[in-house]
Amino acid sequence: MNSRNSDRRDCIYSCTKKMLKVPEHQVAGHIASDGKLGPLVDDQGRFFKPLQGDSRGEHEAKFYESFTSNKKVPDHIHRYFPVYHGTQLVEASDGSGKLPHLVLDDVVSGYANPSVMDVKIGSRTWYPDVSEEYFKKCIKKDRQTTTVSLGFRVSGFKIFDHQESSFWRAEKKLVLGYNADGARLALRKFVSSNSPADSNLTPNCAFASEVYGGCNGILAQLLELKDWFETQTLYHFNSCSILMIYENESILMKGGDDAPAPRAQVKLVDFAHVLDGNGVIDHNFLGGLCSFIKFIKDILQSVEKHDETDTSLLENGR
Amino acid sequence: MNSRNSDRRDCIYSCTKKMLKVPEHQVAGHIASDGKLGPLVDDQGRFFKPLQGDSRGEHEAKFYESFTSNKKVPDHIHRYFPVYHGTQLVEASDGSGKLPHLVLDDVVSGYANPSVMDVKIGSRTWYPDVSEEYFKKCIKKDRQTTTVSLGFRVSGFKIFDHQESSFWRAEKKLVLGYNADGARLALRKFVSSNSPADSNLTPNCAFASEVYGGCNGILAQLLELKDWFETQTLYHFNSCSILMIYENESILMKGGDDAPAPRAQVKLVDFAHVLDGNGVIDHNFLGGLCSFIKFIKDILQSVEKHDETDTSLLENGR
Repeated sequence: MNSRNSDRRDCIYSCTKKMLKVPEHQVAGHIASDGKLGPLVDDQGRFFKPLQGDSRGEHEAKFYESFTSNKKVPDHIHRYFPVYHGTQLVEASDGSGKLPHLVLDDVVSGYANPSVMDVKIGSRTWYPDVSEEYFKKCIKKDRQTTTVSLGFRVSGFKIFDHQESSFWRAEKKLVLGYNADGARLALRKFVSSNSPADSNLTPNCAFASEVYGGCNGILAQLLELKDWFETQTLYHFNSCSILMIYENESILMKGGDDAPAPRAQVKLVDFAHVLDGNGVIDHNFLGGLCSFIKFIKDILQSVEKHDETDTSLLENGR
Repeated sequence: MNSRNSDRRDCIYSCTKKMLKVPEHQVAGHIASDGKLGPLVDDQGRFFKPLQGDSRGEHEAKFYESFTSNKKVPDHIHRYFPVYHGTQLVEASDGSGKLPHLVLDDVVSGYANPSVMDVKIGSRTWYPDVSEEYFKKCIKKDRQTTTVSLGFRVSGFKIFDHQESSFWRAEKKLVLGYNADGARLALRKFVSSNSPADSNLTPNCAFASEVYGGCNGILAQLLELKDWFETQTLYHFNSCSILMIYENESILMKGGDDAPAPRAQVKLVDFAHVLDGNGVIDHNFLGGLCSFIKFIKDILQSVEKHDETDTSLLENGR
């Protein structure tokens, strides 16, 4: 940890000569395009997130500093968080000159064509002691989306359409207008192989068992996080997101020599509103996480049932 | 179930000649005293709760009808709910004549001197589709109390003070003003044998292991409920309370022939705001329940640590 700390100090507020570009696989949050301020990536697998104004950026940097060196957090939990490499002055995406950025591992680097979904966890995004203005802004959106009703909301997602060899991206307006059925459908669509662009097709959940299921799949990872959240009182992860990432080609090419490993992964991101837990568990995150887990379990169960029906039809010679 | 259903029909809107009185052990909610409308009990172990106006009473009756006959609810979960015997017209406590009342088993009957605590579970008491007026009223109180911060709030409690042979009752104003430390202290005090009236005394948690701990204790019961809440999507228990009931004399008299069984018990009560789950788990209740469980676990752990220290002092011959 010491050598990493000293690395980090060395690069804080230094500058970089690397070529940075707009990330291809970001599905929610501020996006650096058309001269706006947003995160950037380099070709070495680093993700540069500009420190947000009004102290939120500083707050997020402080969280990463605390979390990275926190020995009370078990190793198997650390791997659900992006690795942090300090802050660095880099040329901002909006052309406003050099600004401090968080330097993180780019969680999608290493994937050729990652399908990605961002799910904001919790039945509220506000928390005690926020300003009335912030409270009102948050609770309005929490009630309009599924945050209150489901304890989570899908913030955005993209799927690699292997038939078209291109990415399909869910429309932000539609995503934020989901009700419970909409969220359920999105979670099914995210692991389906039939054309995502055609909204008349029923998602076939072709990748569900391999992405959501299995001993290293999304569900297993979510359950590991849940175990930790049942007892951890270190941090309250207000307004954080779970990213789900997988590579559908790796499943389709399975058995082929060049097939990459599927590596369905869960990562937690966005820590501008993390607070000290002060001896209390993060019941807001935990409740939402359990609700999200139930949605994933339901999809797996429906897929298994479907498989059983297929098998019994075969067994009956039909 | 059939014979009970027919019993229930027989007594709906019939009248009773039994002597009803104000319950001695109620610690929260509307209380029937000084001519106000509130629940009554008879000497046969029945609890009569007047149907609240503005359809809430009807709603609670409908919940009991649905729940009682719901075969999807496992038997071991049914026992955490008061047994329901239909509704009945009885003389109201406010002298307004005969009014319909829910007829329930009185959950404290059978206890000589029960200590009782009422804990409202959830990080919000409002829910989607309530009126703006109700939403504003609820969220104000949720933010003023520990509902938002802890995911539960203590609504009231009373302890049998065996030294004084009388009940000590926590002051409602103080209880609703608790912060996290206040709630923690109340949960310690609830299972302590030193004088509850003296706020300078540190609660000794003398009954903690036997009331909260053990394979039939409060914690074990809460964990059983938690298991169910992780998957049940039948009901959303908005604004419900957990009652904790135990008899401290039964612990003190342990070993004596006349000692009653301790029977530390958890019961869920207050269902005027229960809604259909519609395939979604009750993440609001579950999150709060997990937070409450952590508080109980922390107390048990502190008591065990204390016991270990005592033992090692003894072992060291001091």
